[in-house]
Amino acid sequence: MENISVGQYDLIYNAFSFAFATLAAATIFFWLGRSQVAPQYKTAMTITGLVTFIAAYHYFRIFESWEAAFNVADGTITATGYAFNRAYRYVDWLLTVPLLLVELILVMGLSRSETVSRATRLGLLAALMIVLGYPGEVATTNGARWLWGSLSMIPFLWIVYELFVGLSKSIAAQPEDARGLVSTARYVVVGSWAFYPIVYFAGAVGLDGGAAATVVEVGYTVADITAKAVFGVLIFLIAQRKSVAYFASLRSAGQPAE
Amino acid sequence: MENISVGQYDLIYNAFSFAFATLAAATIFFWLGRSQVAPQYKTAMTITGLVTFIAAYHYFRIFESWEAAFNVADGTITATGYAFNRAYRYVDWLLTVPLLLVELILVMGLSRSETVSRATRLGLLAALMIVLGYPGEVATTNGARWLWGSLSMIPFLWIVYELFVGLSKSIAAQPEDARGLVSTARYVVVGSWAFYPIVYFAGAVGLDGGAAATVVEVGYTVADITAKAVFGVLIFLIAQRKSVAYFASLRSAGQPAE
Repeated sequence: MENISVGQYDLIYNAFSFAFATLAAATIFFWLGRSQVAPQYKTAMTITGLVTFIAAYHYFRIFESWEAAFNVADGTITATGYAFNRAYRYVDWLLTVPLLLVELILVMGLSRSETVSRATRLGLLAALMIVLGYPGEVATTNGARWLWGSLSMIPFLWIVYELFVGLSKSIAAQPEDARGLVSTARYVVVGSWAFYPIVYFAGAVGLDGGAAATVVEVGYTVADITAKAVFGVLIFLIAQRKSVAYFASLRSAGQPAE
Repeated sequence: MENISVGQYDLIYNAFSFAFATLAAATIFFWLGRSQVAPQYKTAMTITGLVTFIAAYHYFRIFESWEAAFNVADGTITATGYAFNRAYRYVDWLLTVPLLLVELILVMGLSRSETVSRATRLGLLAALMIVLGYPGEVATTNGARWLWGSLSMIPFLWIVYELFVGLSKSIAAQPEDARGLVSTARYVVVGSWAFYPIVYFAGAVGLDGGAAATVVEVGYTVADITAKAVFGVLIFLIAQRKSVAYFASLRSAGQPAE
């Protein structure tokens, strides 16, 4: 990252600030939204907000680490010698990726035993995927990067299988006006995740310098906002549609609808 | 901005601090107001508060960036070499301008399909307007400023058309005591936006120096407060008027009205 330009530095800087603002705002949106869903979906909304809250915290740290790594004055950029901490992303994912799969399971309103078994399996697979990816991210040889990256793909593919084959029966059993959204939510998860291995292996084929850093950092940022905030809005819409009958029953009993 | 005086610097500094205080206070007003509107308007109030929350965050950053760009001591001002980050405004608008159009659609209480289609169209047009404006804002030639500024006017005019022609039927269908406020809200949006292109093209006709910076920064600040906080108060008043029947029905059922 020695050859980064002021323009590239600024773009990444503004992308980090944008992500912080978006994720912090999304957190409050989800937590306020708790009052607009039926009791059985409140935990899903709480966790949806936890995911964006944890991510907002890490983007704040990432922003500060980025600011500390370079000095930009009088239109020129110099490295300060303080390393940009790449580990923040992995620490974030280790917490947020299992949780966002749990959100999806919770909002589906499955039986208690199916909820526990699916949420546990998907959560552990997601954590394993992140843990296996990290040694490759910080590896100094391409061989190690390919090895750990490939190992990390095993739980990744297993998660894809669970979401598209394992869950297909449960999705078919969702109420009609929520079914399409639940299915879309799976595509948003897997679609936004597709970006991560592209960036990961870009490092293994020798892509480097300021342009590469820009693609990596801005790309991860867009993927994180999609997988956490956009995905969370889908979870909220699903929960809200599935709560219509609950609030209608309260109103017909003369109760306040919230 | 080399020729800025201490008085001009102080005026801009205080305007930024004023904007932060106003937008932060407005945020809390809107979120507390959620409990005073019927369930179908709660998301509109949440988003109204998100807009001012995101703007308050950016004014805090803008304030800090302004402070870092100049050193004022013993009555003299010197540039520190750290650039004032103009991009914060665009990052803010990219998030808040689509959201404030969504607020207006949500408080109108249209059908689900009309809400989705109008909110999506207006949100995307607003984002496009901001994205097209940015290259002109940072351009070094007047030609580029005019080009991008003119391109940005296309989605702007389309939004005006949507608000004044596309929405006219839906506004006519609003309850009588809210209709005038909904119509006024459109004028506040478009009226406050009219300031942005004036400032934008002021740069293209060669206006520069400390006086120009003061007009630009204070002008953008007044426009932001109007389009976000004042507009938000109108959204709250509309939601409150449309909630009167709901709370009356709760009271007649012997329920607490909040």
